[in-house]
Amino acid sequence: MREFILIGHTATIDPEFSLDDITGNAGRLDVLCRGVNAAFFLSHGFRHSVTVHLVLQDTMTIRFVGESLRNLHPDERNIAAAIRNAIDASREAVGHQEASSAPGIHTANYGLDTLLDSFSPDRLVQLIETGTPIPDATLPQDPVFLLSDHEDYTETEQALLTERGAESIRVGPEALHADHTITIVHNYLDTNGYTEY
Amino acid sequence: MREFILIGHTATIDPEFSLDDITGNAGRLDVLCRGVNAAFFLSHGFRHSVTVHLVLQDTMTIRFVGESLRNLHPDERNIAAAIRNAIDASREAVGHQEASSAPGIHTANYGLDTLLDSFSPDRLVQLIETGTPIPDATLPQDPVFLLSDHEDYTETEQALLTERGAESIRVGPEALHADHTITIVHNYLDTNGYTEY
Repeated sequence: MREFILIGHTATIDPEFSLDDITGNAGRLDVLCRGVNAAFFLSHGFRHSVTVHLVLQDTMTIRFVGESLRNLHPDERNIAAAIRNAIDASREAVGHQEASSAPGIHTANYGLDTLLDSFSPDRLVQLIETGTPIPDATLPQDPVFLLSDHEDYTETEQALLTERGAESIRVGPEALHADHTITIVHNYLDTNGYTEY
Repeated sequence: MREFILIGHTATIDPEFSLDDITGNAGRLDVLCRGVNAAFFLSHGFRHSVTVHLVLQDTMTIRFVGESLRNLHPDERNIAAAIRNAIDASREAVGHQEASSAPGIHTANYGLDTLLDSFSPDRLVQLIETGTPIPDATLPQDPVFLLSDHEDYTETEQALLTERGAESIRVGPEALHADHTITIVHNYLDTNGYTEY
């Protein structure tokens, strides 16, 4: 099992946005859409054992479960439409209970701290430019990778990860977009004997 | 210098398509848009030394020159709009002369054979699932990587590459989307001392 938590600092939590302007009125939702693409899609295939958590404004968490997803396409507009429906479903999510907008897509009204509490801390791996190069790191068997969108981790987010002892890694010498980083992480795991995807 | 040739088998060569339907009426243009994204964009940066050639229906070639590009954004819709303008500019391209629709974007009315003739054959590297794993390959100093879109290389394309002696490589055990492959190639070069980007 591979899981990815992608932190969206500016992405909207209001479903009333236009699919024609996901970079603007949806608050750079395009960044998160590309992250979902990178996490799941193979050429004529799909990584069914992956789960993705999108944390929006530390307020809402949308969970994509690979084994249950249906009708998701790799383009940004299609993924943005799925996210819009998931945001809309948040009205039906009460307390820590999730609501579902489609098979494999679940929305909850909580942020990063509560989400992180649902994982054993030894699974947490933070992707950050100052981390250990991935070939030099020892990864957990069922890693939960954390990534930030186009903005840096906030001090609060960094503190939540530090207090849980999350390992910090990086995938190369360049600072990369979150989706490109996910692609490289998958390829590293594929190539180095982490066979389940 | 890193160059990428991305072969689009179904992408439209008619500029009269809607940016709201780039997966449909534009013939999976989304695949090529993501390839352009992967080739150029870094987190808060840009790979200025990269050139991308999009070959559409073996009829039209659009060249993106990193050092000259302006106002290109990483989202599919923005890149699709740039491609639409480039397709429209093809009306002004006569013979083997290119026409330019924007700084760093040039269109010519020729296909793969003519494009390949512009490169020294020892620069050509074909990305294909049956190739040599990239760590086991010896790459040229200024590689020109060829990738196919969501469809396989045609017999004609394969023959053009075989007769020029293009090296065949792959980036991992999974069959990946073209844009994901570009991301991994960049990361491999970044990490293994191919310093210019």
